[in-house]
Amino acid sequence: MAQLIADRRDIDFLLHEVLNVEQFSRHDRFADFNRKTVDMVVSEARNFAVKEMLPTWKEGDEQGCSFEAGKVTIPESFHRLYQLFNDGEWLSMNEDPEWGGQGMPKSVSSAASEYFNGANFPFMMYPSLTHGAGKLVEEFGTEEQKKTYLKNLYTGKWTGTMLLTEAGAGSDVGALETTARKNPDGTYSITGTKIFISGGDHELAENIVHPVLARIEGAPAGTKGISLFLVPKFRVNPDGTPGAFNDVVCTGIEHKMGIHGSSTCTLTLGGSGQCLGTLLGEENKGMKAMFVMMNEARLLVGMQGFSCATTAYMYAVNYAKERVQGASLVQPNEGGVPIIRHPDVRRQLLTMKSYVEGMRTLLYFVGYCNDMVAVAGDQAVRERYQGLIEILTPLAKGYVTDKAFEVCNHAIQVYGGYGYVEEYPVAQLMRDCRITQIYEGTNGIQAMDLLGRKLGMNKGAVVMDLIGEIKKTLRTAKEIEFLAPHTQKVGAALEKLGAVAQQLGKTAASDRVLYAFAHAYPFLEVTGDVIVAWLLLWRGTVAAQKLGSAKGKDVPFYEGILKSLEFFTTSVLPVTLGKMEAINGANGACVEISEESFNG
Amino acid sequence: MAQLIADRRDIDFLLHEVLNVEQFSRHDRFADFNRKTVDMVVSEARNFAVKEMLPTWKEGDEQGCSFEAGKVTIPESFHRLYQLFNDGEWLSMNEDPEWGGQGMPKSVSSAASEYFNGANFPFMMYPSLTHGAGKLVEEFGTEEQKKTYLKNLYTGKWTGTMLLTEAGAGSDVGALETTARKNPDGTYSITGTKIFISGGDHELAENIVHPVLARIEGAPAGTKGISLFLVPKFRVNPDGTPGAFNDVVCTGIEHKMGIHGSSTCTLTLGGSGQCLGTLLGEENKGMKAMFVMMNEARLLVGMQGFSCATTAYMYAVNYAKERVQGASLVQPNEGGVPIIRHPDVRRQLLTMKSYVEGMRTLLYFVGYCNDMVAVAGDQAVRERYQGLIEILTPLAKGYVTDKAFEVCNHAIQVYGGYGYVEEYPVAQLMRDCRITQIYEGTNGIQAMDLLGRKLGMNKGAVVMDLIGEIKKTLRTAKEIEFLAPHTQKVGAALEKLGAVAQQLGKTAASDRVLYAFAHAYPFLEVTGDVIVAWLLLWRGTVAAQKLGSAKGKDVPFYEGILKSLEFFTTSVLPVTLGKMEAINGANGACVEISEESFNG
Repeated sequence: MAQLIADRRDIDFLLHEVLNVEQFSRHDRFADFNRKTVDMVVSEARNFAVKEMLPTWKEGDEQGCSFEAGKVTIPESFHRLYQLFNDGEWLSMNEDPEWGGQGMPKSVSSAASEYFNGANFPFMMYPSLTHGAGKLVEEFGTEEQKKTYLKNLYTGKWTGTMLLTEAGAGSDVGALETTARKNPDGTYSITGTKIFISGGDHELAENIVHPVLARIEGAPAGTKGISLFLVPKFRVNPDGTPGAFNDVVCTGIEHKMGIHGSSTCTLTLGGSGQCLGTLLGEENKGMKAMFVMMNEARLLVGMQGFSCATTAYMYAVNYAKERVQGASLVQPNEGGVPIIRHPDVRRQLLTMKSYVEGMRTLLYFVGYCNDMVAVAGDQAVRERYQGLIEILTPLAKGYVTDKAFEVCNHAIQVYGGYGYVEEYPVAQLMRDCRITQIYEGTNGIQAMDLLGRKLGMNKGAVVMDLIGEIKKTLRTAKEIEFLAPHTQKVGAALEKLGAVAQQLGKTAASDRVLYAFAHAYPFLEVTGDVIVAWLLLWRGTVAAQKLGSAKGKDVPFYEGILKSLEFFTTSVLPVTLGKMEAINGANGACVEISEESFNG
Repeated sequence: MAQLIADRRDIDFLLHEVLNVEQFSRHDRFADFNRKTVDMVVSEARNFAVKEMLPTWKEGDEQGCSFEAGKVTIPESFHRLYQLFNDGEWLSMNEDPEWGGQGMPKSVSSAASEYFNGANFPFMMYPSLTHGAGKLVEEFGTEEQKKTYLKNLYTGKWTGTMLLTEAGAGSDVGALETTARKNPDGTYSITGTKIFISGGDHELAENIVHPVLARIEGAPAGTKGISLFLVPKFRVNPDGTPGAFNDVVCTGIEHKMGIHGSSTCTLTLGGSGQCLGTLLGEENKGMKAMFVMMNEARLLVGMQGFSCATTAYMYAVNYAKERVQGASLVQPNEGGVPIIRHPDVRRQLLTMKSYVEGMRTLLYFVGYCNDMVAVAGDQAVRERYQGLIEILTPLAKGYVTDKAFEVCNHAIQVYGGYGYVEEYPVAQLMRDCRITQIYEGTNGIQAMDLLGRKLGMNKGAVVMDLIGEIKKTLRTAKEIEFLAPHTQKVGAALEKLGAVAQQLGKTAASDRVLYAFAHAYPFLEVTGDVIVAWLLLWRGTVAAQKLGSAKGKDVPFYEGILKSLEFFTTSVLPVTLGKMEAINGANGACVEISEESFNG
């Protein structure tokens, strides 16, 4: 049977031949994760994803969520699946076993996450957000809060959410109006209405824990006056069981383009004046806490988008190999051939393949950097990898989800008319994927983050570290004659990107700041392209060295790695260079045009 | 109230200031269509679109079509709307009044078509396909067939369809298996199953006329043995009324990503051996007839896609002017501003604006070429304009629908989270738009048509005519100093495109044909970009000349035209040049990669 969701050979290549994740097992913390265990984890995740999760994906889309008489109903099959998922202890793969985690390296859990999100990303919203809420409790909670909530969240016994957005406070979180009034017992009474709350209500678990952003009465306006609170759906009894209803009321759910199985709720807190929360972290430091969560969430969103893309790619390749339609251009009289023989289909498939491989490598590499931070003894090394995570995050979210959407879109095109019909899987993948370009900071905001914050971080040292990583690969590649044309192209693109970044950074620091930010998004795009080119070159150096002695199926596999590299450097990078030219032009038409000129 | 669907000022600018469509009223055929009448037609179309059609659009999406007990039910509101549409005589705007048409120039009807499709393109499928079926009867029917069917179709009393696709014959029409057996009375008994039939069944009208591609028993294999038949749902009585059921049975409908209001049917013909058809045109010449219909249908599909884009753009601009979110980058302490002040939103809006204006001009210009063919006394002139229509058709379909989809996608991004929620209009516009990239020949096939057929048409004379049109604009623009930087850039892009086309054409004629066709799609893209650049320059020459003496709202309008031009030449054309570089590289990675290398 054809593979689904991901090319397992490519995952193994990346984990073992490129990133050599077994190295982490030399450290106590990850001692259990030798190659055998890693492979077992990936196999189990794949089996669970294919056998248990994937069959509920389309059903979840068709049933969707409903809201009747104040009750949110999610797809029926998700209930059993959620139990199985928790039984397998998949919710907290990286966390401390003390709190119910598996203590796995992030590079390794990336593979499991890819399979899970590729199989049913709308379902995965529930455990993923639960994990994020747990992370907040772990990082900022008191011992009491940890005791009450943490294990329940990390094991999935209770679920979690994140209450940021309000009708007037989306991208601009600082505009929020939810208030908190301190009670004599130290708790806070919360009042407000939050929208777009994923997993905001449902009956998957006996309690739902809402981290809530709110403003304490009298606190400053804007982001400086925002605090974070823990607000459970049911108050917690002294024995740790859920008690009285805490006045968190779902008043409606959204009808969305995709991720129908994920409930998106409007929640009214304290409508009857009975909603109590406890402060999580310090007063007025809510945004700082939120950013910790948000960075992780952004990487998760990148993984969600990417997982749609890898699944779409696998479906498209399988379909293209089976669907017979039209004769070959070079043998017009020999009847129909599988459409994978047609050059335009191949162009699309190789486009998808090279992006999928590049995105996978980027996301796993960010996991690898996390693992490096976890094991490095030297603080400078830790800071270096932490910096790499920070600068790669807007790319892993913004660039990856945009390219993931394009990959899903190609899959529809490869399927032709069938791609538009919901009986086949690719339409839903595109619909599901589309949200990843928006939530956790639209991709425009990711671009602003890259240009406005990350580029100048630590006086540019972080960028230099990233360039250092790329140059390391270029040095290795230069030793391999066969790669010369690609090495040259990647090097030239990096060179040009550096010049573009410098000029753009200067403009951003001048009074022409709007002109700079008008090019923030194209800059994100070209940076992402150069990073994918680097990662494909890195993979190419490994494949090139192994191809000579490869046997059997490894031969076409390594050849395929090199073809992705060749395609990207010859068919994509010239376009990237054109985009850099446009950025360098620094044209301000979109800044200067008057509002009345946009429409009559 | 904010404008919906289209910027009327831009339509007027295009019709009167750029194309000067009143010139056609000098000819008898179009004598009625002076400026006043043209403006009235556009106003009436707009009013009907906004007041009657638009309100049924979302309802149509939500209700969709259903199939129960053999009966297809379409959205209820479409029934009344269809009557109103026919009462307004909108179905055959360009056709001979003898058969129920309005005899309007196509440049003018383009504006009406934009409003109608922008308001409710799923609904428009019914009259549009009816018109297409009528066209086939007009072009290829006997007097008897015309008498029986033509007026009924052109007035919408009966509806029409097009039965090409079968499960094994999509892009490869020649593979079809539906058969026709000649009866002693000259009719044919038709047997087969057709899929993806838009408007294939419903109860909008008392009869449905199906033009059907089938193979007469004993005819050659492939496209050479295909004939076209007229097969009504109900046989026609001698008095012209619908009679006995003709054994055309709907066996199911598709559940699609979008255009839910348009029924997409599987039809079984002759399941009981009782399906009779009459030959339309000559035996075995069905494909030739089909191409006549298909070229018109492709232009229609371009209009459908574009109409989604212009509607999405108008919604996005209106939303961006109203939605307050985030402070200005240059006045960070002055509170929230409408998001149209943020540079990344402006970048997206101006991207949308310039494409919308470029696409509108392209589609109306094709209509204008049709009108030129209709009125030109000189055969050489007619042939020249006919050639322009032919070479622009794959662009008006393939390039336009791809860019239209991108515009719709930008609209979602401008709306942010609300864009993903079906309560707002932009998600549906993207879902509806997506089919236009697929049907009537996928955009990959449009690219093959451009490279393989149109580029070498009449020994390249057609291309030279197109280049001649562009150079005419360049000459005018060169007289306007203010436009110099843009004129230079458009000229350079045209120059380079010529070189790319020549090289690619040579490769296509060599044994490296697969390498050429691997770049057919990128070639379509860059050709489209250069054409949009040309058309924006043309518009710019008009705006630049008028700006000096303009007053009131015309000032920002003309300035906006020039900003679209500036944006496109400085922010898009450099990318286009990069794409041309990639095509010139003529890399064959996607041709050479083995099938096993695509996945493990």
